[in-house]
Formats: sequence, C-alpha cells, structure tokens
Amino acid sequence: MSTLSPRDLVERLNWRYATKKFDATKKIPADTWAALEQSLLLAPSSFGLQPWAFVVVNDRATREKLVAASWNQSQIRDASHLVVFALRKNLKASDAEKWIDRVAEVRKVSRESLDGYRQMMVGFLGNPPGGFKIDDWSARQVYIALGTFLTSCAALGIDACPMEGLQAPEYDRILGLTKQGLATVCVATAGYRAADDAYAGLAKVRYPSEQILLRM
Amino acid sequence: MSTLSPRDLVERLNWRYATKKFDATKKIPADTWAALEQSLLLAPSSFGLQPWAFVVVNDRATREKLVAASWNQSQIRDASHLVVFALRKNLKASDAEKWIDRVAEVRKVSRESLDGYRQMMVGFLGNPPGGFKIDDWSARQVYIALGTFLTSCAALGIDACPMEGLQAPEYDRILGLTKQGLATVCVATAGYRAADDAYAGLAKVRYPSEQILLRM
Repeated sequence: MSTLSPRDLVERLNWRYATKKFDATKKIPADTWAALEQSLLLAPSSFGLQPWAFVVVNDRATREKLVAASWNQSQIRDASHLVVFALRKNLKASDAEKWIDRVAEVRKVSRESLDGYRQMMVGFLGNPPGGFKIDDWSARQVYIALGTFLTSCAALGIDACPMEGLQAPEYDRILGLTKQGLATVCVATAGYRAADDAYAGLAKVRYPSEQILLRM
Repeated sequence: MSTLSPRDLVERLNWRYATKKFDATKKIPADTWAALEQSLLLAPSSFGLQPWAFVVVNDRATREKLVAASWNQSQIRDASHLVVFALRKNLKASDAEKWIDRVAEVRKVSRESLDGYRQMMVGFLGNPPGGFKIDDWSARQVYIALGTFLTSCAALGIDACPMEGLQAPEYDRILGLTKQGLATVCVATAGYRAADDAYAGLAKVRYPSEQILLRM
C-alpha cells in the first residue's frame, strides 16, 4: 500500500497554514476534489452515526451571499471550493434505528445481530451521559470531519482555511438548512494560496511541546 | 514536495477503521510515533490558541488503571500507544495575552504589531459570541486534533481507535490533570490491528453520499 513516510507527513503538516488569501484563478482538479469529498464521507464519527451534512457551494451568487454573512472575508469568494460543515439537529433514538437499518443493509446481516449496538446507541441518544446536550456532541463530531478534511488537503498539497465566527443563522437561511434539520457549525475553504499571501511565509507558532505534550 | 495521490488518499481512508483489537506484541517505530506526535502539535486550532494538552501514556501500571476507567476495553491495554486528549479549562483574556507573547517571541515582532489580533481574541474569550461556553468551544477544537491524528495515522498506515464514553473524571484523577487545569475529552489508541480482529474485514458503512454531501 502507498503511505506517506513519517518525514513527508511532518513536512506536509508544516506546509499547511490557514490560508488568508487564495489565488482566485486556480481551481482544484476534479479528481483531487473528488478525493477530498471522500475524506468528508469517510470521516470517523462516534458509533458511525455521521451526525452531519457537508454543503459544497459552487454557485457564484450563493457564494457572494455567504461573503456578506462572513464579515466579508475574501476566502469565501476566492477559494476554489467552499464546504459548509453542518450538524444534524436533535438526533434521537429513531436515528439509531435508521442507522441500524443502514448497517444491516450494507453488511447483509440481520437487525437482531446488531441489537447490542442498537441498544447502546438508543441509550446514549435517549439519555446522554454527563448531562451534555446531543447537539453539542454532534458539533464535536463535526470537528473530527473538519480535522480529517484539513489533514487530507495537506496530504494532497491543497491549501485550506478553516473558518469559525461566521453568521451561522444567515448561512442556515441562505442555504436553506434549517428546514432540513441542519445547522451551520463552521466552514472550510480550499484551493491554492495567492503568491502574495503575506501569511504564507510567516513562521508557524506553537507553544513549546513540553507544555502541550505530556508523557507518563 | 511529496504528497499522496488522490487515489492513495482514498485508499488510505477506506483502509482506516476503528480498531477493536490490537496486536499487543507490535510497537509503532520511534520515527513513526515522533511524526504522529508532531501531528498533534501541528494540529490547527481557532486563533492558533491550542486550548489543549495531549497525554501520551506509556507507563504500564497507569495504562492498567485507565483500563478500569474505560469499561475494560482492551484497546487501552493492548494498543502500542495511547493518547488522552484534554482541554484546557476556563480559557480567558489572559490566555490571549500569553499567546500574543509567544507569537511575538517566535516571529520576532512587537506586541503592538499584533494588537488587532490580540483585541479580537480578548473580545472572544471575554465575551463569547452566541452565548456558548468557552469550554464547549475548546472541546470542539480538541476534536480537530483528534481528526488530524486519526487521518495522520491512516496516511502512515497505522491503525487507530478513537474512544469516547470513558470515565473522564477517573482519567483526570489517575493522570493528575485537574490540578493542571486540564480535563479529559476523549482518547485515541494507535498501533496494529490484530490478525483476528473480526471488525477489520467488515464492509465500511456510510449513509448514501447524496444524504450527506449536498451540492449548491
């Protein structure tokens, strides 16, 4: 199998940065973008429940509306591709049943053989541990997909910028997400850094590793 | 630069699965593990604030204590490596000041030149938008690091299993995290799948792509 070498992985991750200015003339090739869409679809989630949807916005007029809902940040307009990461609201026991149906279908096994798995999910969604809210948990899962996508971009040599702090309710309205039970969480833009993005050449800053990585 | 091809990326992500049973005799080589530690240190976070710590637990006696706090799941014992993902609690304006000090130091620029950036962070941490709690936001950031780590493992051909639903307060106690202002969020185990892990051969299940990936 073709893997990255440890050295190449670190080189790729050091190359990655939150791209502030994209080259608006450069488009990600179709086969590369198709692989990045697969990275979204194949992202891991707790129980496999995929409490999310990913909205790829190519329509120019829609992109312009989103610029206005993003404090006019240029990446929303200029990046080759834009993905809105949304969570599926109010997951409940019936979503576990729906998921069991899907697993049984794809793996060609009986629902009965999945009953332990089903009961665990139903218990979790019906009565979340530690008192936390299911939508908060779903939002966390969405960030796994964000990390998967950004790392996949880096592995392929594609620039990206994760973005929070958008006007999420405006996004929901513009994209018609609310009526589908979805809610915008964050965004990733992807493409190619502009030659004059002043941020591209800055040293990457992290806290000293001994403050972040503890060994026991 | 050495990148993965789109085809290899998709192959790697399809190969990945949540490993239920590790081969306890196989250890990740030092250079490979060092790269995976770098994937944690280089993981993106909002504002670059890194509201987290990663605890690599190698001590066998400590691992045994964590097994008991993990509903006896075997991965905690058998995986080559175990990483506990923790959030840094109660981030506040002073954390923004500390971060600005670090950026100024590494990039050899004045604090004054970073004042817009500083003010944005101070405003955010002092008065979070949308009423959400900073610890919830920090937990989301931790899941970016989780996604980065799992994808990095897949790119290197290392098996991994993300784990939630642990007894987090027990983890905090065993690892002495509370007094450091840290709180356990989730865990990742990494190593090599056992030859007899029944889950390794099962078909990967996802919802039909048209239900998850929306195009506009």
